[in-house]
Amino acid sequence: MKISRSGVFHVSSAVLGRITNVKPANIRKDLSYVGEYGKPGYGYEIDKLLAVIEKIIGINKLQRVIVVGVGNIGEALLSYQDWPARGFEIAGAFDKDKRKMGRVINGIEVRGNSEVPSFVKKEGIEIAILATPTEITQLKVNELAQDGMRGFYVFSPIVINVPVGCYVENIDMISPLEFLVYRLKNKISK
Amino acid sequence: MKISRSGVFHVSSAVLGRITNVKPANIRKDLSYVGEYGKPGYGYEIDKLLAVIEKIIGINKLQRVIVVGVGNIGEALLSYQDWPARGFEIAGAFDKDKRKMGRVINGIEVRGNSEVPSFVKKEGIEIAILATPTEITQLKVNELAQDGMRGFYVFSPIVINVPVGCYVENIDMISPLEFLVYRLKNKISK
Repeated sequence: MKISRSGVFHVSSAVLGRITNVKPANIRKDLSYVGEYGKPGYGYEIDKLLAVIEKIIGINKLQRVIVVGVGNIGEALLSYQDWPARGFEIAGAFDKDKRKMGRVINGIEVRGNSEVPSFVKKEGIEIAILATPTEITQLKVNELAQDGMRGFYVFSPIVINVPVGCYVENIDMISPLEFLVYRLKNKISK
Repeated sequence: MKISRSGVFHVSSAVLGRITNVKPANIRKDLSYVGEYGKPGYGYEIDKLLAVIEKIIGINKLQRVIVVGVGNIGEALLSYQDWPARGFEIAGAFDKDKRKMGRVINGIEVRGNSEVPSFVKKEGIEIAILATPTEITQLKVNELAQDGMRGFYVFSPIVINVPVGCYVENIDMISPLEFLVYRLKNKISK
């Protein structure tokens, strides 16, 4: 391995397999589907591989998103330093709490919820991260869909009724901990 | 469906399939492996099903864990109200920042990192949630393993070198957002 964007120039399917817990043969097969073939004893060029994968995911251009709800999770998201490296930009942050408005976190100003419709229209933003209290998350999704938003990344542990033409991803921050307990109890290494 | 622990008494594999995005036939097959068979037109008794699944995972007894690192994520974890319902209790919280010590969040007092070894020994705790800055997470895992901890739930987006006899689960809070972009771009509904 040699140094590049992340400190490494090329990487073997063996190393990728160890990191991702996927069989190296499967890594090679999957990557061959997108036209990438590693060279024996050298592996894959990382910058090229990243570019191909980012293009497939759709983050080869910076994806601009907003954060709705600036509690602990929202603030953690705004404070996260690696958004640009992951292909994202937090273009705006919104909260209903007047006391939070005007606060600037990591260069991003917190605005009132009422500003969302004009902001996303002006900025052409379609994706929102919702770090709202669970009780209001579905309502927020509905409102934002009416404002023209189409993608919702939801931190509330509920099943969202997805508006027509929209897409929702949830994160459950507890389930990996449940899996950890299960592995510990049954001595399951990865 | 009728009302029970979560407001519902019994549930069909069709409903479970819709919620989890798994084919009902697969739900029935998987549950039959653990001895659970739904009745046609009635489904599964939810309380019994939950008890069986919680026993398998190992959370039928309350799992006591500690939180190390009380930044935004740590505070969000401490503030989370549904730990008991999910089978967990946050027994203690620890941070290196002296200004945070003595703070009580959701009934849990923040203590200094130096108190971890005696605390986990006295309380018989084996599992830690690490919401530490990425740079020190591996070091913390190593230290905690020396203190007898065996399970680590890690919020840092890094590959942890797992100490012998220990188990690690990571969470990557960005990857669901990447998948959302991919689905949006390719119009992939669930």
